[in-house]
Amino acid sequence: MVKLGVKAGDKVGTLAWNDHRHLEAYFAIPSIGAVLHTINIRLSEEHLTYIINNAEDKVLLVDEGMIPIIEKIKDNIPTVEHFIILTDEETLPETSLKPVQLYEAFIKGANETFQFLQDIPETNPAGMCYTSATTGNPKGVLYTHRSIVLHSMMLCFADTIAISERDVAMPVVPMFHVNAWGIPFATVSLGTKLVLPGPNFNGEVLAELIEKEKVTMTAGVPTIWIELAKVLETGKYDTSSLTRVVCGGSAAPEGLIRKYEKEFNIPFLHAYGMTETSPVVTVARLKSHQEELPYDEQLKYKGKQGLPTILIEAKVVGENGEEVKHDGEEMGELLLRGPWITDEYYREPEKTKEAVQDGWLRTGDIVTVDEEGFIKIVDRTNDLIKSGGEWISSVDLENALMAHEAVFEATVIAVPHERWQERPVAFIVLKDGKDVTEEELRQYLLEEKKFAKWWLPDKFIFLDEIPKTSVGKFLKRELREQYRDVLLKEQNV
Amino acid sequence: MVKLGVKAGDKVGTLAWNDHRHLEAYFAIPSIGAVLHTINIRLSEEHLTYIINNAEDKVLLVDEGMIPIIEKIKDNIPTVEHFIILTDEETLPETSLKPVQLYEAFIKGANETFQFLQDIPETNPAGMCYTSATTGNPKGVLYTHRSIVLHSMMLCFADTIAISERDVAMPVVPMFHVNAWGIPFATVSLGTKLVLPGPNFNGEVLAELIEKEKVTMTAGVPTIWIELAKVLETGKYDTSSLTRVVCGGSAAPEGLIRKYEKEFNIPFLHAYGMTETSPVVTVARLKSHQEELPYDEQLKYKGKQGLPTILIEAKVVGENGEEVKHDGEEMGELLLRGPWITDEYYREPEKTKEAVQDGWLRTGDIVTVDEEGFIKIVDRTNDLIKSGGEWISSVDLENALMAHEAVFEATVIAVPHERWQERPVAFIVLKDGKDVTEEELRQYLLEEKKFAKWWLPDKFIFLDEIPKTSVGKFLKRELREQYRDVLLKEQNV
Repeated sequence: MVKLGVKAGDKVGTLAWNDHRHLEAYFAIPSIGAVLHTINIRLSEEHLTYIINNAEDKVLLVDEGMIPIIEKIKDNIPTVEHFIILTDEETLPETSLKPVQLYEAFIKGANETFQFLQDIPETNPAGMCYTSATTGNPKGVLYTHRSIVLHSMMLCFADTIAISERDVAMPVVPMFHVNAWGIPFATVSLGTKLVLPGPNFNGEVLAELIEKEKVTMTAGVPTIWIELAKVLETGKYDTSSLTRVVCGGSAAPEGLIRKYEKEFNIPFLHAYGMTETSPVVTVARLKSHQEELPYDEQLKYKGKQGLPTILIEAKVVGENGEEVKHDGEEMGELLLRGPWITDEYYREPEKTKEAVQDGWLRTGDIVTVDEEGFIKIVDRTNDLIKSGGEWISSVDLENALMAHEAVFEATVIAVPHERWQERPVAFIVLKDGKDVTEEELRQYLLEEKKFAKWWLPDKFIFLDEIPKTSVGKFLKRELREQYRDVLLKEQNV
Repeated sequence: MVKLGVKAGDKVGTLAWNDHRHLEAYFAIPSIGAVLHTINIRLSEEHLTYIINNAEDKVLLVDEGMIPIIEKIKDNIPTVEHFIILTDEETLPETSLKPVQLYEAFIKGANETFQFLQDIPETNPAGMCYTSATTGNPKGVLYTHRSIVLHSMMLCFADTIAISERDVAMPVVPMFHVNAWGIPFATVSLGTKLVLPGPNFNGEVLAELIEKEKVTMTAGVPTIWIELAKVLETGKYDTSSLTRVVCGGSAAPEGLIRKYEKEFNIPFLHAYGMTETSPVVTVARLKSHQEELPYDEQLKYKGKQGLPTILIEAKVVGENGEEVKHDGEEMGELLLRGPWITDEYYREPEKTKEAVQDGWLRTGDIVTVDEEGFIKIVDRTNDLIKSGGEWISSVDLENALMAHEAVFEATVIAVPHERWQERPVAFIVLKDGKDVTEEELRQYLLEEKKFAKWWLPDKFIFLDEIPKTSVGKFLKRELREQYRDVLLKEQNV
């Protein structure tokens, strides 16, 4: 990297799945003082272009499978001076990217006695990740050496994830998602064996890896565990090595937790966090006295997001800023403060001002806190939909739909979904005398508006009118309540 | 405290055993920005006086049992403005200390809505502890909020001491010894139940507490575990709740480790550190692959001081500053660096310069490092003797003995001791025509030279000559080798 001209503070982007090369980049890049910018490869071309330009990535490490997409945007990312292709192949694949080289050849030419920087100031940036905004372009979050070290230490606590040298850890959560929740950093600091499932995995592959590598700890979003559960139900795999499955990104349904713990005998550990929080800020590990409760009672706590970890301060405030009662009923917005909570969005003073107030990060999550201090997310203040651990902006979809010549009004809501936790559903009011089909709208969003395919609403429901508040805002909650059961039924749940 | 005029940065001394009042002081004092100065109550009056004056303690919290000693030195510690007596009694004991008040009455009068300081700068001092010097007065070490927090976090790692909310922790190591190895801070941060054994304990009391309170984790010096072992051998106590005994302060003999693990079925965990290092810097927890070794092989590692913890850098250097081979044979001095290693002795620029070089603390411990990275202490560069976890200066004893009118030369060496790990033995050469008995020398050290009783050599051996190096230094190593077996035999080991 240094010989490519990368200097301290420069950003190096990665577009990669979970593998050993990506892991090497996790350490090599921060260790020369540069910034590891992990890019979510599921984003639309438009957002990828924006992110690379906003970060001013100087070098991109690109998984072979991502080449076609990067080729499409290569002329719009002028800060990128080098492309390095991550692949098992020994020769460079055909590509219009340039200048370009093979990762393996690149590191083979490196100086073996190279001295990594000593004593990098701890508040220097080491990593970077973008998160979706309610509308428009994603927002960048910087991680410092300090925030990463402290967050990694927390993950090693006996009372949180208890990562240990004796673990065999398999992060299924992508390494382009908030540093795979910090697992690569924590495990490598202890010398823990890592199992990285690569780009092409499914429930079968994961079950095989768990059995073969004797995985003790794995982490991912509920969608993954729903898929794995179907495979484990066959009873074909030995998963007795697993001492916990860590689940975050979205809330896991209680039924799923019960299935893992009671049917598969695998402890299930709920955690919560966001890109802005490194990410882990709460873990739903039971307190010792709660372990004596009947299992159904325990399950109520296990299904919550959990207790704030050490060094994390949480405050839940109502509309007037007053703290809510800890009764598990009163709702308020969750505010967070601590050494691995961001205090700004990269180059976004306006968005920072909205989100960070008096040193507290406004999470946008509406939660309750019970007598035990366990936090549970019950709603969201913003208009984001979380599908399989990824954000979708309902506002962006609404704006695009309302720009269609046949659409008078449109609103998009999150509907609970068995597999993806949430999926978007659109409600459309047509202009008088105009008509459009569901299929036409789908094509319009995909082709004209360039949305990623997984952003498209699962369903378009045509109405005469969308219910509104007195000031004319869409009453999304009413639609959610009215259609929830119908839509759940259609999924055959 | 605030109403007594204690301000941020002021020192508050404690002369106390392990109990709930001392624990309250551990948090109340740093939380107003003042410095918790825990004083080793086993020191001589002379050293106590020096320490209180050097630290400029403004208030002293004094266990009832310590009143007679503090009364003796009260006129020589002018910085102390208040004495607060720690006792279960409801009235103040008879004392010449003044101004003086009862702790319980004092806190009863406190403001219940008092706001502790928020956002104390993390590099501000929070605690302070003195350690013996090779000769002369003890040296002070300051702990910062930062160093205490990071050290506490390390103790909670699954791979170190694994302190957890579900533990019942009993620190037997005194709370006047390097913050009881940080256990009070780590446990309270998690909400762990603490069992504090108070001033009057012995093996029986500890065994009873373990059984009754279902202690899961306890920590102390080898002397304690030797005493407890005698009680456990009776088979009268149920200690099945214990998941580990943590041992530090001195090296535990392998036989003791085996006894705990094989006879009592209690995992035994060796740790190492010093006052200057907060203290824990290494823990001898086996790596996963070492657990597959035959037990005798495991024991070799368990008997070593262990692996450096996260954030601690260790370097072992020979006489010319070159790093030794990691072969478990080559010896060198252990140097340490990290966020909970001190970089100065309080108000001792000269001693600091000797001990801290290029950012590394010279421990004075001669160690080997094996292929696994496990550190083992084999010798000491300085002339300190460690008896039951407490330092004794051989140089101070020698100087005092040589000041006796009948003594021509004297040297004091450390002899291995079954119960106390090391004890001092003096070698005396008399002046021509002079005579003195062992008993007379003992009285002389005690009464004229004011040494604490436990500092006195166990034995005085009269010689015609003390072996010396070519430049006239005493050849202590030769004496140690020559007398080791004889002296061990006398202990009936």
